Amino acid sequence: MGGDHGPSVILPGAEIALTRHPGLRFVIFGQEDAVRPVLEAHPRLKAASTFHHCDVSIRMDEKPSQALRQGRYKSSMWKALEAVKGGEADVAVSAGNTGALMAMAKFCLRTMPNIERPAIAAIWPTLRGESVVLDVGATIGADSQQLVDFSMMGAAMARALLHVERPSVGLLNIGVEEVKGQDEIKEAARLLKEARLSGLVYHGFVEGDDLGKGTVDVVVTEGFTGNIALKTAEGTARQIASYLRSAMTRTWLAKLGYLLAKGAFDRLRDKMDPRKVNGGVFLGLNGIVIKSHGGSDAEGTAAAIDVAFAMASAQLREKIEKDLQDFYLSVSADAAQKPLEAPQ
Amino acid sequence: MGGDHGPSVILPGAEIALTRHPGLRFVIFGQEDAVRPVLEAHPRLKAASTFHHCDVSIRMDEKPSQALRQGRYKSSMWKALEAVKGGEADVAVSAGNTGALMAMAKFCLRTMPNIERPAIAAIWPTLRGESVVLDVGATIGADSQQLVDFSMMGAAMARALLHVERPSVGLLNIGVEEVKGQDEIKEAARLLKEARLSGLVYHGFVEGDDLGKGTVDVVVTEGFTGNIALKTAEGTARQIASYLRSAMTRTWLAKLGYLLAKGAFDRLRDKMDPRKVNGGVFLGLNGIVIKSHGGSDAEGTAAAIDVAFAMASAQLREKIEKDLQDFYLSVSADAAQKPLEAPQ
Repeated sequence: MGGDHGPSVILPGAEIALTRHPGLRFVIFGQEDAVRPVLEAHPRLKAASTFHHCDVSIRMDEKPSQALRQGRYKSSMWKALEAVKGGEADVAVSAGNTGALMAMAKFCLRTMPNIERPAIAAIWPTLRGESVVLDVGATIGADSQQLVDFSMMGAAMARALLHVERPSVGLLNIGVEEVKGQDEIKEAARLLKEARLSGLVYHGFVEGDDLGKGTVDVVVTEGFTGNIALKTAEGTARQIASYLRSAMTRTWLAKLGYLLAKGAFDRLRDKMDPRKVNGGVFLGLNGIVIKSHGGSDAEGTAAAIDVAFAMASAQLREKIEKDLQDFYLSVSADAAQKPLEAPQ
Repeated sequence: MGGDHGPSVILPGAEIALTRHPGLRFVIFGQEDAVRPVLEAHPRLKAASTFHHCDVSIRMDEKPSQALRQGRYKSSMWKALEAVKGGEADVAVSAGNTGALMAMAKFCLRTMPNIERPAIAAIWPTLRGESVVLDVGATIGADSQQLVDFSMMGAAMARALLHVERPSVGLLNIGVEEVKGQDEIKEAARLLKEARLSGLVYHGFVEGDDLGKGTVDVVVTEGFTGNIALKTAEGTARQIASYLRSAMTRTWLAKLGYLLAKGAFDRLRDKMDPRKVNGGVFLGLNGIVIKSHGGSDAEGTAAAIDVAFAMASAQLREKIEKDLQDFYLSVSADAAQKPLEAPQ
């Protein structure tokens, strides 16, 4: 029911994803009168789906607390999360209200053992391909241990998405060395260096311009900075696209050149198409949730479902759980050893 | 002596600026054997300049504390700041080590009355023209009062640069409403709303994508986030330029189209040219300091000197001092009134 267009783009998007992954099965939650007619018009999707009517749907402008009060246990958003919790679905996809989805996901799925805070991971297009960037807005502020948790979760996601055995991980920082206030980042760097995790290679600090370069597979930061960075990059891309459009329509020579180079421009548009990398992944919960962009069309929705499919196929949740368990076991083993070492 | 190229681009840059502003006078500090030959080759600049030899120059990779120890009272960087302090120069321009320049500027010029922390303001190209964004990396973290100080300083700079009588000011924030941890931003918003400052119009919160849109004349944030946003935008612009280059050289049709539309591409390159908006402005000190990008060529250096000229001509320091004084007087008047009001 979510997003700017509701079932009219979400169901066609699901059908596109279904043609790409014929093994997909959908469990659809929404208001019957909105969903049923669109579903009837897509017989192939209908055949691969189970539909559950829900009276309540969360509005895009509802505050998280309000959404929880009004939508818990009964809204289509809640029911989709509950399907993941109960094992009826492997992953939940929603184009709805992000704040409400995160609040409900935390309440319904709960955080993993050892994880205090979930993160939202974005797939960032880079000059090398794609990187995973987290947290892009789940929670403001993160202590050093949470940054380490994000590193392990992001690496597990990068492994599933980019097929790199040991993804490189960088901590987002600013260039100046002697500055105060970034103690949690310095401490996270120390922890990552010392832990020598088998699932990732700790690269060191990266700066804002390393995001677009694709210097590392995974960029870790806390949610405020991550969200500002993500929206700044999106805004800059739109700004340049607008410059380009006005430059190419200004003179007849430019227009002619544009026509000749249209194939190249289409390729460029494709590269910059935000629909191609749609899908924020909620990590750190007992179940994977994908947030599709509210303004997505059917293609964008299909891309979010592609991500969902990749994450579920890779058994992302199980792998993250195992990585975290290994890490915390090794940490507690270290801690247990220390008192023995001390007297020597 | 600073930047990647030293006097060989800085002096030609000064000559370009001189042709644009024939009233300019330069006080040049540096090592005689490096500066003198270039100065001799630019007789017009030489006629408008005074040169002072300095034995010591700060290296680009020196840590701020190291630079202070080795360069205080004698380096070319220090001497340039001292010229501002003593009134010999109206503004200092350096392409050198940013951290060292800020550390020395704080030590030499000291912060203005009522100002605890200086800020670095960037000139940000937008779809509407240009905005002022601060702090882009002087200090990490800022409390609510510091964000208000940044707002007043940024507005004064925007008035001088953009010729807007009452610039609009936005506080950089993330979209989610009900999140913890941004108390200082909320508090700054309250202070700005209540203060009803004569020198600016408080717009409200803005997000990362408002930077490129030019939603407001001045965007205020603390230095960590501001630095990440600035470098992320620069990185994204380079990333898209690289996509565009490879798209336009891939087929002969694209190459032909590129040739026809070359005028348009040149205009676009011009729009995206980071040299055109070169110059970080140090605000909050008893003297204006402009940081030119280390990698700048002569054109970029000239742009930084243009900014310096605009700031000095507008008597930026005096105006900021007056705005701050008015604000703190009104605040203390309010505070003085409150005890009288309470018993009523």
